[in-house]
Amino acid sequence: MKHFDQQQLAAMENRERVKFINSLSGFKSANLIGTSNRRNDDNLAIISSVVHLGANPPLIGFIMRPHSVDRHTLENIEETGVYTINHVHRGIVKQAHQTSARYDRDQSEFAETGLTPARYDGFHAPYVEESRLSMGVKLVEVASITHNGTEFVIGEIQWVRTDEKAIHDDGFIDIEALETVAVSGLDRYHSTQSLCRLSYAKPDKPVAELDLNGDSHDQNDD
Amino acid sequence: MKHFDQQQLAAMENRERVKFINSLSGFKSANLIGTSNRRNDDNLAIISSVVHLGANPPLIGFIMRPHSVDRHTLENIEETGVYTINHVHRGIVKQAHQTSARYDRDQSEFAETGLTPARYDGFHAPYVEESRLSMGVKLVEVASITHNGTEFVIGEIQWVRTDEKAIHDDGFIDIEALETVAVSGLDRYHSTQSLCRLSYAKPDKPVAELDLNGDSHDQNDD
Repeated sequence: MKHFDQQQLAAMENRERVKFINSLSGFKSANLIGTSNRRNDDNLAIISSVVHLGANPPLIGFIMRPHSVDRHTLENIEETGVYTINHVHRGIVKQAHQTSARYDRDQSEFAETGLTPARYDGFHAPYVEESRLSMGVKLVEVASITHNGTEFVIGEIQWVRTDEKAIHDDGFIDIEALETVAVSGLDRYHSTQSLCRLSYAKPDKPVAELDLNGDSHDQNDD
Repeated sequence: MKHFDQQQLAAMENRERVKFINSLSGFKSANLIGTSNRRNDDNLAIISSVVHLGANPPLIGFIMRPHSVDRHTLENIEETGVYTINHVHRGIVKQAHQTSARYDRDQSEFAETGLTPARYDGFHAPYVEESRLSMGVKLVEVASITHNGTEFVIGEIQWVRTDEKAIHDDGFIDIEALETVAVSGLDRYHSTQSLCRLSYAKPDKPVAELDLNGDSHDQNDD
């Protein structure tokens, strides 16, 4: 095992450090953020920083970098107050990645990449028709991270669209069955293979493996 | 495809909604946060919300839920200003998950789960000896998310410890080779299989597949 100290990290060539540091957080989610401005110009941007924030109310967040190619996304969200978050599955990885190109404001990443914008019941922001899990989100807070000028965009989930067959008895959604992909570093995409579901951990008891419906395999489990 | 509207989401039974909403963000990182208080009592907590924030300075964040079993983690971070973040690989999944049990303050999750605390050059917080990618982090900011009382804990990476063989020519770290796992929902763990690395996207050019060193497979690529 090799240790890199602060001086060694600082001495890395800039693009090398970007790829190295981007690898450190572990696997990331792969989502497309769909927005539209007041004139109904659509925008679509791939984001790998979507995180769960709470179930009640159902809150979800993502990081917006300063001066990124995704700046139209945040402008549209602030203008209309709504956006969609759409899982990337293995069949649309290249189209999803292509949305990160620096398109002009009057170009729609939907049209440029061949993904299809769809609308849900008067909700202003478009979702991705090809995605197997989409949600509509209402902006609740943009928290500024003063240390490096990033913004943490927080929203409340308004609706969810997914394949009902992937939803199990206890509410768990099998996103592996949906072929949702994971991201590592800046640019690598991965499919997944299930290792296990594990029971709620208690101090004096080993964790048990659960089936996909959340039931224990262990007959002695309470 | 099924649509769930806001009323249907709100009508779900509480534990069902927790599992459903936790599945929506996509794949998550699996990391153990190592801390120690001033009296050197160690603490270890599994966290699935670690996100990349920036490469220069190298910043990383994670979400701390209010009143969670991980409350000792944030207390220790605020007391000492430092912590470690350690990737969970497939060989330590059950031990890592077990750290989420509600242990008393005087119990070390290292001792209770059989994971080994190790120290780097006078850095106060312990890292996980068994982990294949660990980093030391200095607290820079705790941003409160006012909407639901969560805290976004932001730190600067001070050092990194990993297997040099997993680092490729352009700085990219092959965390799949390290057997780092991904999480979905509250309690499911996944290994990964590489689909592709993709080139930096440009508006008028299809993305190319890259090898693990970041070189293009396409001989015509510039």
